[in-house]
Amino acid sequence: MDEAEPRRLVELSPEECFELLATEEVGRLAFNDLIGPAVVPVNYIVDGRTVVFKTALGRWLDQSLSTSIVGADVRVAFQVDDFDVATRTGWSVLVRGGAHHLSPEEVADLKVESWAGGRESYIRLTPQEVGGRRVQA
Amino acid sequence: MDEAEPRRLVELSPEECFELLATEEVGRLAFNDLIGPAVVPVNYIVDGRTVVFKTALGRWLDQSLSTSIVGADVRVAFQVDDFDVATRTGWSVLVRGGAHHLSPEEVADLKVESWAGGRESYIRLTPQEVGGRRVQA
Repeated sequence: MDEAEPRRLVELSPEECFELLATEEVGRLAFNDLIGPAVVPVNYIVDGRTVVFKTALGRWLDQSLSTSIVGADVRVAFQVDDFDVATRTGWSVLVRGGAHHLSPEEVADLKVESWAGGRESYIRLTPQEVGGRRVQA
Repeated sequence: MDEAEPRRLVELSPEECFELLATEEVGRLAFNDLIGPAVVPVNYIVDGRTVVFKTALGRWLDQSLSTSIVGADVRVAFQVDDFDVATRTGWSVLVRGGAHHLSPEEVADLKVESWAGGRESYIRLTPQEVGGRRVQA
């Protein structure tokens, strides 16, 4: 394998993106706090055409996703990937849209397993853009 | 192994964060465009206490990291992690700070290998905050 050879970038369809999202357990959420952008890993599930994850109630991420307007969404990005360093191949999916907290009733049928525990504030991200790329030989 | 058992979160020191950053080849850069936050994977190197990566000149990421003020930094976040789904353990490092384009002279001694090729615009992220966590059993 010629490691110096640039890989080919292939755009993924939204269908492929959702299929790939469903294969992973950890994604990365990008959001803004008062200083600027930040990224944190979160466990998540795909629920229909949305992404659901949990945060620790009242802490950094949870607060950053709160607005003073009930029901208002906060703009976020959610990214999942899987790369193989040996072959320099892999894929990445990016979902952008609005996130909002879920009510206890909305949470009833959802089960997000958080590795770290202690995350009881449920957030739903409703995609407005979904895209991705595969890097292949 | 009891999968239901929550993992322990251990804060990483800045030293540990830089050691871990040096072990990987792909990180995720979070930035804002006109709509809001976005995340893209990038190849990178650690250069001293900074992170250097490349973008495609004039394209989405490159433009989003440009300002009208020469020498001004754009606020970004850079995240690297390594998780093992089987054991539900791993680590994540987050670097936040200002990013700016490098001049050809500054680039001379740097070599970032981009898997995708065609990325000739060099960016340096100077950390203002470095932190991370390990998730362990």
